Order: sequence, then structure tokens, then C-alpha cells
Amino acid sequence: MEQIDWISLEQELIALRREFHRYPEPGWMEFRTTARIIEELEALDIPVRYGHAIHTRDKMYGLPSARELEYGVERAATECARADLVESMTGGFTGCVAAIEGALPGPTVCVRFNIDCSAIDESTSPEHRPARDGWRSLHDECMHASGHDAQIAIAIGLARVLCARRSELRGRTVLLFEPASEGLRGAASLAGSLPQDCDYLIGCYIGLSDLPVGTVAAGVHGFQASTKFDVRFTGEASHASDLPETVKNALAAACSAVVHLQAIPRHSEGLSRLNVGTLHAGTGRNIIPGEAVMTLETRGGNAAINSYMEKSAYRICEACAGMHGCTCETTFQGFAGDAACDALFVRAIADTLRNLHGVEAVSEDVAIDCAEDITTLFHAVQSRGGQATELVFETSLRAPHYSSDFDFDEEVIPLAVRCLERIIRGAADYPRGERAE
Amino acid sequence: MEQIDWISLEQELIALRREFHRYPEPGWMEFRTTARIIEELEALDIPVRYGHAIHTRDKMYGLPSARELEYGVERAATECARADLVESMTGGFTGCVAAIEGALPGPTVCVRFNIDCSAIDESTSPEHRPARDGWRSLHDECMHASGHDAQIAIAIGLARVLCARRSELRGRTVLLFEPASEGLRGAASLAGSLPQDCDYLIGCYIGLSDLPVGTVAAGVHGFQASTKFDVRFTGEASHASDLPETVKNALAAACSAVVHLQAIPRHSEGLSRLNVGTLHAGTGRNIIPGEAVMTLETRGGNAAINSYMEKSAYRICEACAGMHGCTCETTFQGFAGDAACDALFVRAIADTLRNLHGVEAVSEDVAIDCAEDITTLFHAVQSRGGQATELVFETSLRAPHYSSDFDFDEEVIPLAVRCLERIIRGAADYPRGERAE
Amino acid sequence: MEQIDWISLEQELIALRREFHRYPEPGWMEFRTTARIIEELEALDIPVRYGHAIHTRDKMYGLPSARELEYGVERAATECARADLVESMTGGFTGCVAAIEGALPGPTVCVRFNIDCSAIDESTSPEHRPARDGWRSLHDECMHASGHDAQIAIAIGLARVLCARRSELRGRTVLLFEPASEGLRGAASLAGSLPQDCDYLIGCYIGLSDLPVGTVAAGVHGFQASTKFDVRFTGEASHASDLPETVKNALAAACSAVVHLQAIPRHSEGLSRLNVGTLHAGTGRNIIPGEAVMTLETRGGNAAINSYMEKSAYRICEACAGMHGCTCETTFQGFAGDAACDALFVRAIADTLRNLHGVEAVSEDVAIDCAEDITTLFHAVQSRGGQATELVFETSLRAPHYSSDFDFDEEVIPLAVRCLERIIRGAADYPRGERAE
Amino acid sequence: MEQIDWISLEQELIALRREFHRYPEPGWMEFRTTARIIEELEALDIPVRYGHAIHTRDKMYGLPSARELEYGVERAATECARADLVESMTGGFTGCVAAIEGALPGPTVCVRFNIDCSAIDESTSPEHRPARDGWRSLHDECMHASGHDAQIAIAIGLARVLCARRSELRGRTVLLFEPASEGLRGAASLAGSLPQDCDYLIGCYIGLSDLPVGTVAAGVHGFQASTKFDVRFTGEASHASDLPETVKNALAAACSAVVHLQAIPRHSEGLSRLNVGTLHAGTGRNIIPGEAVMTLETRGGNAAINSYMEKSAYRICEACAGMHGCTCETTFQGFAGDAACDALFVRAIADTLRNLHGVEAVSEDVAIDCAEDITTLFHAVQSRGGQATELVFETSLRAPHYSSDFDFDEEVIPLAVRCLERIIRGAADYPRGERAE
Repeated sequence: MEQIDWISLEQELIALRREFHRYPEPGWMEFRTTARIIEELEALDIPVRYGHAIHTRDKMYGLPSARELEYGVERAATECARADLVESMTGGFTGCVAAIEGALPGPTVCVRFNIDCSAIDESTSPEHRPARDGWRSLHDECMHASGHDAQIAIAIGLARVLCARRSELRGRTVLLFEPASEGLRGAASLAGSLPQDCDYLIGCYIGLSDLPVGTVAAGVHGFQASTKFDVRFTGEASHASDLPETVKNALAAACSAVVHLQAIPRHSEGLSRLNVGTLHAGTGRNIIPGEAVMTLETRGGNAAINSYMEKSAYRICEACAGMHGCTCETTFQGFAGDAACDALFVRAIADTLRNLHGVEAVSEDVAIDCAEDITTLFHAVQSRGGQATELVFETSLRAPHYSSDFDFDEEVIPLAVRCLERIIRGAADYPRGERAE
Repeated sequence: MEQIDWISLEQELIALRREFHRYPEPGWMEFRTTARIIEELEALDIPVRYGHAIHTRDKMYGLPSARELEYGVERAATECARADLVESMTGGFTGCVAAIEGALPGPTVCVRFNIDCSAIDESTSPEHRPARDGWRSLHDECMHASGHDAQIAIAIGLARVLCARRSELRGRTVLLFEPASEGLRGAASLAGSLPQDCDYLIGCYIGLSDLPVGTVAAGVHGFQASTKFDVRFTGEASHASDLPETVKNALAAACSAVVHLQAIPRHSEGLSRLNVGTLHAGTGRNIIPGEAVMTLETRGGNAAINSYMEKSAYRICEACAGMHGCTCETTFQGFAGDAACDALFVRAIADTLRNLHGVEAVSEDVAIDCAEDITTLFHAVQSRGGQATELVFETSLRAPHYSSDFDFDEEVIPLAVRCLERIIRGAADYPRGERAE
Repeated sequence: MEQIDWISLEQELIALRREFHRYPEPGWMEFRTTARIIEELEALDIPVRYGHAIHTRDKMYGLPSARELEYGVERAATECARADLVESMTGGFTGCVAAIEGALPGPTVCVRFNIDCSAIDESTSPEHRPARDGWRSLHDECMHASGHDAQIAIAIGLARVLCARRSELRGRTVLLFEPASEGLRGAASLAGSLPQDCDYLIGCYIGLSDLPVGTVAAGVHGFQASTKFDVRFTGEASHASDLPETVKNALAAACSAVVHLQAIPRHSEGLSRLNVGTLHAGTGRNIIPGEAVMTLETRGGNAAINSYMEKSAYRICEACAGMHGCTCETTFQGFAGDAACDALFVRAIADTLRNLHGVEAVSEDVAIDCAEDITTLFHAVQSRGGQATELVFETSLRAPHYSSDFDFDEEVIPLAVRCLERIIRGAADYPRGERAE
Repeated sequence: MEQIDWISLEQELIALRREFHRYPEPGWMEFRTTARIIEELEALDIPVRYGHAIHTRDKMYGLPSARELEYGVERAATECARADLVESMTGGFTGCVAAIEGALPGPTVCVRFNIDCSAIDESTSPEHRPARDGWRSLHDECMHASGHDAQIAIAIGLARVLCARRSELRGRTVLLFEPASEGLRGAASLAGSLPQDCDYLIGCYIGLSDLPVGTVAAGVHGFQASTKFDVRFTGEASHASDLPETVKNALAAACSAVVHLQAIPRHSEGLSRLNVGTLHAGTGRNIIPGEAVMTLETRGGNAAINSYMEKSAYRICEACAGMHGCTCETTFQGFAGDAACDALFVRAIADTLRNLHGVEAVSEDVAIDCAEDITTLFHAVQSRGGQATELVFETSLRAPHYSSDFDFDEEVIPLAVRCLERIIRGAADYPRGERAE
């Protein structure tokens, strides 16, 4: 068994995190990001699958336009991404799946890491460390503002330590680098790449509550169910002083819909939400708008509530389109169901972590209160008898997630590596079975 | 040829008008009114048709409820209406049709008179002549507030003078006493009683512009097309703190409909109107309304515009009901199309009237700008080659139509009798043919 | 100490309950009801206060119209209510407050009982026991459909047993007979009659969950905050074919308001509700409505949420009125805040009840999930250092509360008397202080 | 008096028209266009005023952004516009005013010509003559699609023929080259450059009804009044799963406004219109929109109706903003009032034209039924006792105005020059005075 030089590793992982931070790429466009991950993994002699091999084409939700995808490919090329790798991902087939085989028999543990960035312009303030120290995002309107750069660094760190100790490793560890997790788009396409025999699935969340590094949650609750979709209203453009009686005003239809979408009755079982995030309609002041496009999302405290919101939204859009002599068309863009972490698995992890150096507080259940498409992977694993959880690695935040000043204490990276390694190494001894509700 | 004692006749007609004024009856409930008309006509040996004989049952639009109709019958009985006559009208078969045959051959002239009252509480002010002089309405919420009492008196006066001179009368004169003209309800049912060979159709309007008696219009333009209908939205009543996600809120549906009914786009061809006159919904503050009922009407500068408004209204109500998980049901209550007076006929009448004592100003075309269901009779007559017009007999008004202080200069009654008699007697010499647009 | 003949008492209380059931009276109109309660109490030599003495005139929310109040007084007279008593309550000053002084020193315990009925037509079905056995409601649209008749019987029974054992009774017991609890109207007016030194306040609820008699809860949680109010929109009535550009359409304003009231955004802290229960507008199909009146209520999982809903509703109504050139006026009709039962008090009661014959299950905290204006009395008592709770006496229900077939197992009446007597007698030994959140 | 070589002139004017057609520039950005006009006029020794000298800065409505204006200047430079001229127009001060002094005393006649293009991508179809023959627009989204290129050519032609015969010309002719007539933006700024003593004002319209060249109208009626403005709703952006109770949703406010803007009641006096041409709101699917911007316009059959629509729109936007806790801000972008051509002037022109070679039909009054900001100039001239009219020069159209295939019979150019020259030369003999309604 090889010794890990933790001090060097920590420095290397932080350097890697900063590299990924400089080259943020949005969902389905993580060309350079994926290529670099593959290079790192192949350097460890880990077999990596990627491109068409790992995706289900008709579940790649919310793909950018062909033009945007092409731009992403070109940009990656100018940023020294290995050409053959980028080539294989053309069209949005980003992300990769790597398997580390232990020398000894044991369970199959999958760990999911997110790799895409957010559509945010990173701060240029001298107070903002990445700006001050020269590793701010090089891409306009792109920023790693929710710690996916840290997730990648953790994953590579984990690969290194597991490989270093492969001789004593029991079972197989599969690292899933999921593209397009923002917008709840990537998990469905990647779900087919989960091994059939997956015993344990783990996801990570970095910095939920602004607690210091050392606080770790072994499980969470409160996954919101959510659906993302677009609605296009189509009428007929005409001149504003023509025949008003023949008008098919798509903007009027969309606005009626917005008013009534806000008015979907509450749900007795819990939280329900709907947001029309954008609406764009019309071509000129004196032209009656023939087209209006809205992007929206529903959320629910559970899947039934979200489904209620979603169906109500469809009904309202259809009715409002019809009322104004227009039609409407809905395009599905992303989804997450609700889910529950498996209690036995969570408890076993908590027990593992309590004894670990650097971990100062372990909770078994914190409220995550957001939508995460890892729930799609949960369902896949749990339906075949596996267990799943999401860990939260707290880390002091310099600004909240999704703000242009987002930054965190990088000590969380080596700590997370250590925690995940210990869990994976201990998993062979974890109890099986009994599913949480 | 009998001499007419005009002075006595005038006194008698005014007395008759005041009698009818005291016993106003709403549409389809003119039981006492019709019975008295029939008595007057039969006293002149004029054959009168009434009851089921003159109506088309499925075109009796906007009938009161069975309970109201029954109440009307009972009230008529207590007010000395001849029992056999009322009996024959049970169920709303009011109004009558009388034919006066001239001794000489000639054209068939039909004259339409309205007989129903308005749903208005008559003024009790001592300034109001009927109140002061003791012939105010005896019926709550019932008032002859648009001169239909005068129309009846004119009709009876006309019958008397025509009968008196029957020996020199050329052709046949048919008097149509139309029930339920308010709300545009009665004409369709009565249209079948128009003689097939009707050459000329005449309607009257009393006091359009507050000009003095002596000003007469031989024709009008600007009949609005209009449709009257009710819409009932049905959802499901439930307690306000129950399961909001199952709500089928009929009030919410109706309110969405009202908002969008106001927003039907204008029409390029002219005037369009829609009014939701009443809305009633709900049973209690903490009960989600399971039912909402609105009464509404559309209007158009022509029939196409009205039809556009009506169809738009149906579409909106359906869409809003569906949007809220409710259903809606429409009940047709009345209708008037647009129409045009026949120019040749109008000119001939104008020529007749110009030479008549008491007539001081004759116009050929004033704007009526309202909806009148006589247009249904116009279409029936004109489609068979006949001609039609509506006369306006001006008379100083003490208050506008449909106000609780409405009253007018009764001199208009004998003048109108004189005018109509002269027109009917002259009609045999009128030109035929050529239809106005 | 006098012996209680429980068997006779039970029969008498059931007979009393059925008498009150036959003469249900709505809020602020409990003339006969109050008179009978006073007679019963005075027969026990208990001093009773009533009429103007116990009410704060400007807090008598949601009073019926003068005409309705007058009708209620007249009806009570025909139903043998003592004239002097009814006279003192004229104008709605119903309800009463009675104090039973124990022979020994001790705490002041107040018990609140409801006395008004619901606006429901009682079932005439032979399956419905009151109908079958001849004690169905004698009043149209009035029914004791939530057990207030039982509350009155329990109160009278409690008065009897406390009086019988007055020599050994420690402290003072105050019975509050609150009028108009339906609609959350009566408590505010009665709050001034709570003794300043009230140590304990108790309310009752009969039959929350259809469990059998013998199940009792010593405390509840989940009081919803709620506000009841009416909104009158005033515009200007005009004829539908007049000048649309001058229209001030009160119905249009109200409908815009309803649409937007449905769309008040959710609240992150919990349950929020709004219901427009009724809307009435307009006088005729062809008249643009000059007035529209809606009755509505808001609810919240806590007082802040309810306040948010209420303020949002005001803002929306004002805006929609202004948008349509109308004005609106709000009339407050009733209110309940949230509240919490005092944990020490609840526990003490639970301990008392657990040892009582006939009580088979005691819980300390059930969810009531509705709005109750006893919370106004809670606040008054708790703000002066007293403690409060609401008990639930379960009893098998033959139909749910507020249904026309509502009926229950009358064994709950003697059981509740027994429980309350034991609590009152034990209260001198209860711990003081420490308030629950 | 110089002889005009009409054949050469016609060819030159058509060539000029095609040159202007290739370089279309939108309102306030007619840099190259104006520079070329000035060159042409100065070549004739006509004094030309331009730049700040002819504009009223605070009436330059609907200016493009600084960035767009700058782009326009730069483009003009690359297209060989004279640098000193463009420099003087920087910031949007386009258009020019030229005066031709006759040798003899006489009236002052002003002729207004439009010079801006429409925001339309010109057709590339080989059926489209400009595309086929190589003089299609060189600018994306810019096209002379309503004949302003013809107006410029006519103006230059007119300048040439008037100069050629200056010795016999009575009075002064002022040519106004108005920028930004599309969107009703330019006239107010230019109105100050009208000579105080303007006796006659003439505008032109090319090809109203697809009649052949030779049909001319000496006057029009039916100028619509219209206002163009933008409304910006400002709320507060927030995350869709945050605190909904604090939401200030600008999109919701805008949509409520759109729904109610559609529902502004009709006007009894005539045509009323409102169009929300574009609405753009929001930044992302899961962000509650903090800003929404709409561009809209109102129209009225007369100025009072348009003002009613405009004021109603402001009221509705304010109310809807307030209802949703947002604010709104309105930016005025353009305006046209109603106006009437002066009957005596129209008749005199008609008489002039009837005798002119090439003119085959002259009407005195055709319905224009659109909004034109020349009405602002009408008012300025008429208020000082001058007379005004707009001529229509018909010309066979290959496609309607504002379509990407718009083209016309260029024979209209020399004909219009001839007509205008004859009118100007005859104007000294026209009657003065008496204003039309």
C-alpha cells in the first residue's frame, strides 16, 4: 500500500480546482472540463467511458442550440482541450464515467460529481479572491458559483487515493461526472450508465449552511420535486391598425396564462411553487405579436405536488392559448423527483465519519430544500435494491451560492476526499437492505 | 263612411293609456294587458288570434320561470282579466294578432305594437304626474317606462278609426301586439304569425329625442344587432380550508371570463359592445363557490360584428371554465339582427305625412342606435318581397326612457293614430319594389 | 357536600341539549338561547351578567342587519323567551357570563362555551335522529351542526355539579357563554368580561376526529389565524349602449380583484389560504354594474401569514378598484389569531383526566387545523400571566360537522361535565407559570 | 427660363432613388442619406440648414441608444458620407431644411419629405427587382419599404426644376427633409424649423391603394391620432424557491397590465386601438423577474379618443405595478395628432392637377386611415393661419408597404415632381383663408 502525501495532494487539488474555475462551461458544453478530467483519470490508468457510450440521446434534456454547442466545441479547442476527446463529445455528449477496481471483492459504490457552471458573470471586485489572485473565470456569463469546481477536484483526489491503495480496496468504485446538473438536465441521460449492481450511491453538496469545514452531514431530506419546461404561444403577427377582429395575439395569450399560472390553488400537502422566469414576445411596437415564449419551472414538496403544479400549468396554458385563438407547445427541459436517503446507509456513514480526523460534527439529516436531479439516480439505484445518500460538506462561504462573489474555504476539498475514501473503504462492512420511506 | 269624433277619441285613448299604465306587466306575463286588448278589439268585431295559435313555442326566448308565470296569471285574475282569455295564455302565450279587412282590394299592411313593461319601480314623487294624479303603476318593479302603454292606446285608436271607415279601406291591416319586446325576446315567436303576403310592415317608437309632438320620422337607421344570453359556471362547492388542490371554483372561472370578455378585440367595421350585467356566485364566506351565473349581452353595429362578439364570448367562457376545472352552460335569451328601412316606402310615408295636419317636421332617416327585435319581423317581410320601416313619433319627455320618472306628452297618441291611419289608407298607392341596402 | 344523581343529571342534560337543538339561533341573535341559559343559572342562584354589561359595542363584529336582529327578537318572543331578558339583549347583546364562587380560596378558572348555530337547513331524513325523534330544528336555515347545543348542556351540567359541591370548591369558576363564535365574531366583544385575575382558561371542542366517547385531548395545536371581511366595489351604473369611455364598472373591478386575489404568492412559512365566498353584482343585463360586493376570508398557518394574506388582499382590491375608476370599501367581519396552549397546564389536565372513570385515552396535543376565536381570549389571559388550553371531547359522529345530518353520541355530555368538574376542582393544585411558545 | 430635359431628369432621379434604396438608414440615423441630400442641394446653390440648427433637442423622441447612433455614424463614414456633414449630425441630428427663393414675390410653400427606412430585412428573391438588379439594401434589417427613397428623389427633382425656373418663381419654397417619421418621432423636433410665414404645407404619400401612376389625391382624411411609449416595470429579482411572500414580480405586473390594457372599454366616438408590440422580461427560468419592458402604442379616430386610450393605459400600468409591489416608468417615444386638410387648398390643388399631362384621375378626399406625424406640422402651420394638405401619388405596387418585397412603378417619381412644381408655381394664385374643420 502506497503512502499518500497529503500535503502535496492538497496543493495539487486546490490548483486543479482553480484551473477548472478559470474555464467554467455550461451544461452539455463541458468539453474542455471533461477532456481534462479524462486526462487526469487516464494518467492513473483508470478506464474512462465517455461520449455517446454513456448517454441516452433522447433523455439529454435542455440541450443548448446547435450554434451554442458548436461555439463551445470551438472554444474548447482554443483552450487546449485534447481534440479527439472533444470530437467524441460533439453535440453535447459531455461528462464521463470511470471505474476503479479494487483488488479484493466487495460492493459497487458509485459517486456522482457535478461539472457544469452557472450562467453568472463572475465578480471583478478586488475583494473577490479569484479576481484578486488571477484565477477568475475566463468566460463571460459563466462561473463556477456552486462549487462544482470543488466537486471535480474532490473526484480527482479521490481517484488518486483509491488508486494508490487499490491493493487493499474491496469492490468497485464508479465515479460519475454528470454534465448539465444545473436545470436538472443531465441525470436522466446518464442513468443508463449506472452499473446494474450498484450497491451504494453517493452525491455531494458543498457548503449548505455557511458552517466551517469539519461539519459533515451523512444524509439530507427535503429534495424538492421540480419540472423545467418552456411554452411557446403561436398566433399570427399582423399590423396593429389592421383588422383587430382577426387578431391571434400570442402575447395576450401568454399574459393571460401568466396571470392564471400565479393563481394555481395551493396544495394541502405542502410547498408548491411556480415561476415564469422569462417571457419574450413581439417584433415591433406596431405589430401584434405572433409569438411569445416563456421559460418556467414548477416545484413541489413532493412529486405529487409538483405533478399537480405541472399539470395545472399545462391546462392553463392550453386554455389561454385557445381563448385567444392561438396554439401553444410545451418543451420539456429538465426534471427532478423527490427522494429519500436510506437510513441504514446514512447511519453507517455517520458512524464512519465520526471517527475521522478533521470531522468535528456529523449530522444524519439536514434539510436541503432544493431540487437536485441526483434523485433520478437515487430511484434507479434504489429500485434495484441499492442504497443512496447525499453528503453535505460544509465550508465557510464568502458569499452565497449563485452570487457573483461566491467563494469558499478550499480546505473542504482534502477533507471531502478523506471522508469519501474512508466511506468507500468501509462500505464492504455496511449493512444491506431495509429501505427508508 | 262614419265620422270620427276626434275629441272623444282622444280622451278615450288617453284614459286607456293610463289604465294600461296602472297595470304594467313584464314580458311573457302581459296576461291582463292582452286580455284587455282583445276585449277592445272584439268590441269592434275584429277577429283576434292569440295564445298557442300565434306563437312558435321553441322561439319564445327568455321566458320567466314557471313560478313567475303562475304568479302573473294569478295577479291578472285578481285584476279582473277575463278568465278564459288568461287561461289560453297560461305559460306565457301572451300578445295577439288582429286583422281588419278593408271593403276594397289592396295591400296587406302590418303594424307592430309593443305591450310589455320594464323592470323599474315607478317614481312616487309628487312631481311625477302618474303618481300625483293617481294612475301610477300598481305593480312593484314594473313600469311602462318606454311608452308601450301609448303604443297600445295608439293601436286601439287605429283599430277604431280603420273600422269606422272600413267601407273605403283598401286591403287588409294586421295589428301585431308583440309581447316581451324588452330583452329582444318576443319577435321570433310571433314572426310565424305575419301574413305571407305582407306588403308593408310598420313599427313605432315614441319619443326618441325629446322633440315636441309634431315631429315625425318616416324611417330610421342604426339598428344594433344584439344577443342576450346567460352563462352558468359549475364547479364544486367545498370548504375553504379543505383540499385546495381539488378545488373547482366556479366564481374564479366566471371572474376570469369577465376579465377576458372585457378584452375581446375591437372590430374594424364599427361599434361593438359587451356587457356582463349581473354576476351572482357563492353561498357563504368560507365555502368555495360551486356555481356562478352571469347575464350578459353583446351588441354590434351590424349582425356580423354582433356575431363576432357572441362567438368570442362563448369561446372565452368555455376556456375559462376549463381552465378552472369547471364547466359552463349558455342559455340563449333574446336576439335582434341589424336591418334597414326600405327607402321607397320611407319616402312615400314621408310624402304622406308632410301634408298631414299636426305634423310639423318630417325626417326620412334618424339614427335609432339601439337594438330592436322588430328587425326579426323586417327580415321575414323583406325576404318575401315586402317593405318595412319604423316610425318615430316625437313627444316632449318629462324624463328619459327607462327612468322611474318617465312620462310624455299624450298628444302624441291621437297624432300617431292619425298618421298611421293616413299611411294605411294611402298604402295602396305606394310604389313597390326596389330594396334599400 | 351534596351527592350528585348522575343518572338523572345525564337525562336532564340530554333533554336540555335537545331543547336547544330545536331552537337554534345564529350569531348575535341567540336571544331565546341566552334567556334559557340565564333561567337555568339563576335557578341555581348563580349571579349572571348579560346584555350591555358584558359587551364592548365597537368590537361586536359581523352583526346582522337591524332587520334581522329585530326578527330574531320577535321570534324569541313567540318562543317563550323571558321578555325582560330579551329586551336587555336587543340589538345583538346576547351571551352571558356567570360566576360560581367556591367556599374556599383558590384560583380563578374560566370556561368558554359557544352558543350560536350554523346557517344550515337541518336534514329531514328519517335516518337523521333529530328528525326521526321530533327534535329537529324549528328554524329554517338554522341548525346546531357543530355541537354548540352540547356545549350549552355541558355548561349547565357543570354549573349544577359545581354548585352542589360549592362548600368544598376552591376559587372561582367563571362560565363564559360566547355568542357569534361562528365567523370568529364574538370573542373580541366578550374579552373585556374576562376577570383580570383569570388563572386558567378552558375551551371545548366536541368530536374532532370521530373517535368514540372516552378519548379526550388536554390541549391542541394548529389554530389557524383568519380574518373575515367584505369588500364593496362602487362604480357608476349606466346603460350598456351609452358612452363606454365613461364606464366605472364595479363588476369588472371585482372580477379583476378575484383573479388577482387567487394569485397572492405563497408564503414560505406555511399554510396560506384565501376564499372569495360570494360575489354579487349588477341589476340587469343591459346595465353596467355600479356595485359589486364580495365576502371573503383569509387564513394563515400563523398570524403573520394571515396578516400577509389580508394586507395583500387589501392592496389588490384597492388597485383593481382604481384601475377601473371605481372605489372600494372594506368591512371587517371577524378575526382569530394563532395561539398556543400552555404546556404545563395541558400536562396537569392530562394527569387529572388519566385517572378519571370513563376516560379511556388522553392525548396532550392534537392538531385542530381550523380557526377559532377563542384565541382572542387566550391572548387576553396569557398576557396577564394566566394559562389556557382547549380540550377536545371526542364522540362518535353520525355525519361531519357542518353537514345537515350532523349528530353525535350524547354520552359525551356527562363525560365532559365530569372532566371539567374534576379539572376545576384540581386546578388549585396545578403548577403556575412558565409559558409555552 | 431654363428648359428642363425631362427624359434625362427622370433617369437621374430613378438612379438617385436606387442609390438611396441601397443605403437605407433608420430614424435619427439617416447620416449618409442626409449628407447626400445636402450635397445634391448645395450643387444647386440652394442654402441648406441641418444639424443642431434645425432640431429642438428635447423633442427628438424615440432616439436610438448612444451605441446605435455611434454605429450609424461609423457606417456612414465607411459609405463615403462627407465627414464634416456627418460630424454635425452626430447624436441623431439628421434631416435638413432647404429654401429656394423665387425671383418674384409670393407665398411661402413648405413641402415635407420623409427620409428614414423601416426595420425590415429586404427580400433576396430573384422576383424582387432590387435584388435581381443589384440595388437591394446593403444594410441588415433596414429597407426602404414605404417609398421614402422615392420621396427623396422627388424632392431633389423638385429642387432642380424649381431652380431651373427660379426667375419666374413667385415666393419661397422650403423643402423639409424629416428624419424619423417612422414611429412618429421626427416632426415635433423639426416643427421649429417651419417658417413662421408658411402659407402652405404639403406632404406626400406614395402608393396608398395600388392604383396606377396617374391617379392623384389632392387631400386625405382619417389621420389617426397615436401615441408611442414604453413602460418599464421594476420589481426585485429573487430566487424562485426563496421567500415567495416577499416577491416583487415585474413580469406578473406586466402581464396583469397587458390583460387589462386589452380590456380598456371602447369609445363611443369612433375607432380606438392599443397594441403591446413587445414584452421582454426575466433573466432565467428559476429567477423571479425583477424587470419587464413593454413597447406599446395607442390609436384613436381622433385626438380625444387617443388621449383616452393613453390615459387609461397609464392608469392600468400604475395600478398593476402597485398591485404586485412593483413600480413602473413610462417613456414617451412618439406622437401624432389628428388633423384635417384645408378644403380650399385641396380644391385649388385638385383644379391645378386636373389639367396636368400625365394625371388621369384626381380625387379630393381619400381615407388614409393611419397615423402620420405630419399632423404636428399641420397644426403648427394652421395655427398661424396657413393651409395644409397631404397628396397621395398612386403607383402600382409589387407588394404592400412594409413587406420585404415592397416595390413600385418608378414613373411616379417624375409625375410627382411635375405635380408639385405646378402646384408651387400656381400657389400664388390660390385663395387664402377659411379653414376646414
